[in-house]
Amino acid sequence: MNYPNGIKKTSHNQKKLEINYKNRGMTLESDINISNEYYRDIDKAFIYKKPTPIKITKVDYPSRDKTVIKEAFFTVPSTTDYNGIYKGKYIDFEAKETKSKTAFALTNIHPHQIKHIENIYNHNGIAFLLIRFTSLNETYLLTAEKFINYLKVTEKKSIPIKYFKENAYLIKDGYKPRIDYLKIIDNLIGGI
Amino acid sequence: MNYPNGIKKTSHNQKKLEINYKNRGMTLESDINISNEYYRDIDKAFIYKKPTPIKITKVDYPSRDKTVIKEAFFTVPSTTDYNGIYKGKYIDFEAKETKSKTAFALTNIHPHQIKHIENIYNHNGIAFLLIRFTSLNETYLLTAEKFINYLKVTEKKSIPIKYFKENAYLIKDGYKPRIDYLKIIDNLIGGI
Repeated sequence: MNYPNGIKKTSHNQKKLEINYKNRGMTLESDINISNEYYRDIDKAFIYKKPTPIKITKVDYPSRDKTVIKEAFFTVPSTTDYNGIYKGKYIDFEAKETKSKTAFALTNIHPHQIKHIENIYNHNGIAFLLIRFTSLNETYLLTAEKFINYLKVTEKKSIPIKYFKENAYLIKDGYKPRIDYLKIIDNLIGGI
Repeated sequence: MNYPNGIKKTSHNQKKLEINYKNRGMTLESDINISNEYYRDIDKAFIYKKPTPIKITKVDYPSRDKTVIKEAFFTVPSTTDYNGIYKGKYIDFEAKETKSKTAFALTNIHPHQIKHIENIYNHNGIAFLLIRFTSLNETYLLTAEKFINYLKVTEKKSIPIKYFKENAYLIKDGYKPRIDYLKIIDNLIGGI
């Protein structure tokens, strides 16, 4: 193919384009946001990402109807990132990516968040983790039950990929929705 | 009573103190936050206020482990302020104060929020409004059902206090919790 000014696309460039197309620069977060939007569009579930918690320390009022935050800091979240309703039930999860090919470091989940996941599980909510191993291009759903069980029996600071392979559910990438995690939840909670 | 330096407390000052004590400077929001903390402490329900949604436009990294937000703006919320789990069920509500003695202006609730409340109601979640008439010192719980019914039959831009008196539940101020809105929910959902 000929380009303007006689520039020819090299195979090197094409390779780059392919990679970009394949991954689409999509993070787990944007995949989940798009999937949640789809679930809302088809009236299946209403699940949202919570706003990022921040502490506002300086605010400006340049005009009557405008407020500008001039200084704020990110704060440690006390709960998980996503929650909502599915079939009348409360659903709650945390999503994390890791570059590691061998394990998910537990430092990625704050102690407050672990306690929160336990609370939701104990109160019969649907709670889980969505963990993406970006280098493996694998995304797993690990239920609160399996997560808590693991924490009870280990002293390790991470969850090995083996534990995911044996105890979590691999989510295949799809089109609509991008990651159909509710399909797994359907199988887990049965015919509600 | 004699004060140091011979200062005598006037009855005018005392009146002020009484007023401060009675209202304790508590907003509906802080009452709800304290009540939710209590519900969590006694392991009854896990309900949180969502962080305020903002759009971050400038960020500074003065040192490696510190991030400062230098410019951000408040954005219109697409959902309500509070949600969580109670008895395995999804619970969701919006809380607002009004100084009016006669009506609650519907401009206080964004169209997105109304749609959200409808969605939660249609999916068998527990959804409602907590409205405080500060001048009357009265706080009402108005269920999503009664709220939606009102919107269907009216062209008005506000909900008159009469509608609250006849269709909503008056919540008496308490000590622990400050406002026991789950007591009303218990009566509504029956012996789950």
